[in-house]
Amino acid sequence: MENKKRVVIVGGGFAGLNAARVLGNKLDMDITLIDRKNYHLFQPLLYQVAMAALGEGDIAAPLRNMLAGYHNITVFKGIVKNIDMEGKTVITDFKNIPYDYLILACGVQHHYFGHNEWEEYAPGLKTLAQAKEIRRRVMEAYERAERTTDPVERKKLLTFVIVGGGPTGVELAGSIGEMSRYTLSRFYRNIDPKLTRIFIVEAAPRILGSFDHELASKATRSLEKLGVQVWTSSMVSDVDAEGVQIGNERIEAATVLWAAGVTAIAIGRTMGVETDAIGRIIVENDLSIPGHPEIFVGGDLAHFDIENGKTLPGLAPVALQQGKAIGKNILLDHKGKQRKTFRYKDKGQMATIGKNKAIVEVGKLKFDGIIAWFTWLLVHIYFLTSFRHRVFVILQWAWSYVTFSYGARLIVNREWRFYPDPDKCRNGREEEE
Amino acid sequence: MENKKRVVIVGGGFAGLNAARVLGNKLDMDITLIDRKNYHLFQPLLYQVAMAALGEGDIAAPLRNMLAGYHNITVFKGIVKNIDMEGKTVITDFKNIPYDYLILACGVQHHYFGHNEWEEYAPGLKTLAQAKEIRRRVMEAYERAERTTDPVERKKLLTFVIVGGGPTGVELAGSIGEMSRYTLSRFYRNIDPKLTRIFIVEAAPRILGSFDHELASKATRSLEKLGVQVWTSSMVSDVDAEGVQIGNERIEAATVLWAAGVTAIAIGRTMGVETDAIGRIIVENDLSIPGHPEIFVGGDLAHFDIENGKTLPGLAPVALQQGKAIGKNILLDHKGKQRKTFRYKDKGQMATIGKNKAIVEVGKLKFDGIIAWFTWLLVHIYFLTSFRHRVFVILQWAWSYVTFSYGARLIVNREWRFYPDPDKCRNGREEEE
Repeated sequence: MENKKRVVIVGGGFAGLNAARVLGNKLDMDITLIDRKNYHLFQPLLYQVAMAALGEGDIAAPLRNMLAGYHNITVFKGIVKNIDMEGKTVITDFKNIPYDYLILACGVQHHYFGHNEWEEYAPGLKTLAQAKEIRRRVMEAYERAERTTDPVERKKLLTFVIVGGGPTGVELAGSIGEMSRYTLSRFYRNIDPKLTRIFIVEAAPRILGSFDHELASKATRSLEKLGVQVWTSSMVSDVDAEGVQIGNERIEAATVLWAAGVTAIAIGRTMGVETDAIGRIIVENDLSIPGHPEIFVGGDLAHFDIENGKTLPGLAPVALQQGKAIGKNILLDHKGKQRKTFRYKDKGQMATIGKNKAIVEVGKLKFDGIIAWFTWLLVHIYFLTSFRHRVFVILQWAWSYVTFSYGARLIVNREWRFYPDPDKCRNGREEEE
Repeated sequence: MENKKRVVIVGGGFAGLNAARVLGNKLDMDITLIDRKNYHLFQPLLYQVAMAALGEGDIAAPLRNMLAGYHNITVFKGIVKNIDMEGKTVITDFKNIPYDYLILACGVQHHYFGHNEWEEYAPGLKTLAQAKEIRRRVMEAYERAERTTDPVERKKLLTFVIVGGGPTGVELAGSIGEMSRYTLSRFYRNIDPKLTRIFIVEAAPRILGSFDHELASKATRSLEKLGVQVWTSSMVSDVDAEGVQIGNERIEAATVLWAAGVTAIAIGRTMGVETDAIGRIIVENDLSIPGHPEIFVGGDLAHFDIENGKTLPGLAPVALQQGKAIGKNILLDHKGKQRKTFRYKDKGQMATIGKNKAIVEVGKLKFDGIIAWFTWLLVHIYFLTSFRHRVFVILQWAWSYVTFSYGARLIVNREWRFYPDPDKCRNGREEEE
């Protein structure tokens, strides 16, 4: 035991999980993975849970099940309070864990541009609890619209504003558009769900800024066909219980969803290491922290410079590849070999708007429509293969595709917490104790 | 419209839903169904959600989807505050709804024998939110046991007490037994889940009191094989955060679950009509309230006398048949014909203990073991046919049966409320607003 290298991994997302898998069952490694939650979450499909198309069990799996085959990995559900870099010890809410190598992969959380009080009126979509809160709010709005006899109130209840026109905002808006136009119509007696107003409010001059201009414009057309009104160059100046203010303009809406900025989990600032403007930890090209070769950072928390002054985006494939690279660099270190520079193999990016509607961009290859949608579907099914339930996801999707129906739109709970809880790692929220 | 009979149904459980179906699309009927939740819950399988074997969407479906085909039915998610019997009006939290006929089917909730403060330490199992709270507590106990280094604390964390030895208590205990003995063992590094201690604490001289003596005794043997310790003639005298007190005896347990008494939703007492000792409304043999032929009561809320001074038990088939009978009696009334006396067609009773282990009793027919278990399975699959997801349930069960694995044991939320909220109908709890 005393010869083993102790590796502590903070966070069980794509980066942490894949680092663990590389180091798993390596005889001279003793791994501890800590996460605030007991599960790994397939975040790219989180909006489908928010829209009741999938259940929570379809896109999340307990970390200890996923890592059960690696006998040198111990999983703890716990909260990392701080890192003692001098003493090489992780301070948690249950014990202090010494390390030889530390991997930080705690991710990001939503950022309200200095207006954390907006979260109460505009929940983000980073956790399962938030996804279910969004589901509850959307379905509750329809329930209340069915009950009210006041036409102004009803109009407000049937208005949904999504702040932020990135892939998540587009996917949320497209889902609400599709649900209101095709799925919900026959379930209500006093309202016509087709009259639902949906807005995407984006500060930049166009939505899907990371995509090719023409693709983004096709996505805008697809959204409009689903009844989504896309407001660009529109900076939200206030959010309250009754709607959003955009400079002098105002939209009255009972439901506002936040898909705009993110900020890194505060651990970098807590440790006193160098971070960028949004709190991401600046890493060397081997993914370690400058001056601390024993500490690695991966996934959304890492600020990794590429050419032209750009950094790698916060995407699942980046996190996945960084996790693997960190694991391999630790193994190389341990064998006395030189570490490798991390190079991201660009997997492209994609966004889905609705049934048969998506956009895909891989290098110079760009396409949209039904082929893009099936590409999106196949890629996500492929990546879900680490989950037990992939067969159920495929069947449920097939069912929804054929029947145009959504899953159980149950209004069960309102469990989520307010922003921020600055001394916590792993999403900075007190969802569980 | 003015000639139509206005029927208001309070509660979308088995009784309310089936009354609605009988009256649905009858031209001269105008139906309003009100429920605190937006979904119908298949309560007999609720323990499977608590044990992570099924997801919430597998056993619940939105009421408005289930009733969408009946154009004369309006569904409201709302809270019934009171009934104005003089003015024939239902007072809700959003508007007053006049009726010609009223059907009360609000069910029962857990009863702590005058110790409502016990609920905090021993949640019951009547709602989806409670099922998920139980799931969270059970899985959280294992997480904490894995973390602790104190053997006494660990023992307490690996001890589960179920208060009440009826079918629900037996099913919960059997599931925890099976999970600890077969499923969880390879996921932990610091604990052996097989050492889990599980107790059923029952005040009566034997468990499963409504079943045949010999069958109940076979069930006890099956439970013991799964490591469940059955304590009979054991009246719980106190419950706290550290365990349960049974007279002079004490069991230290981090997790206590309540499957003992029930009490009717307070609506009967609020209305000032005649109720029995546990608050159920006493009904005539046509299921109407004495002196109020326009008010019917069905399901668990109804006290229906049968011979020998007994009343009908609170079982799904009773509620289902009563709901249908109420609907038919309203139609008979409306046609000027005489109402029919309700007669319960006994469908028997069953309980499942674990894989291949169940007991079934139908009249004089009694059997156990694998045949009983498959009978249980077939009956429940048959009754789930009103749900979209029945094919997924069957597939998930088949999967679990073959692999002995359980579904996603995610610890997501802690959303449930404390007992009691006496002025509310429909389970008396403030799970949603």
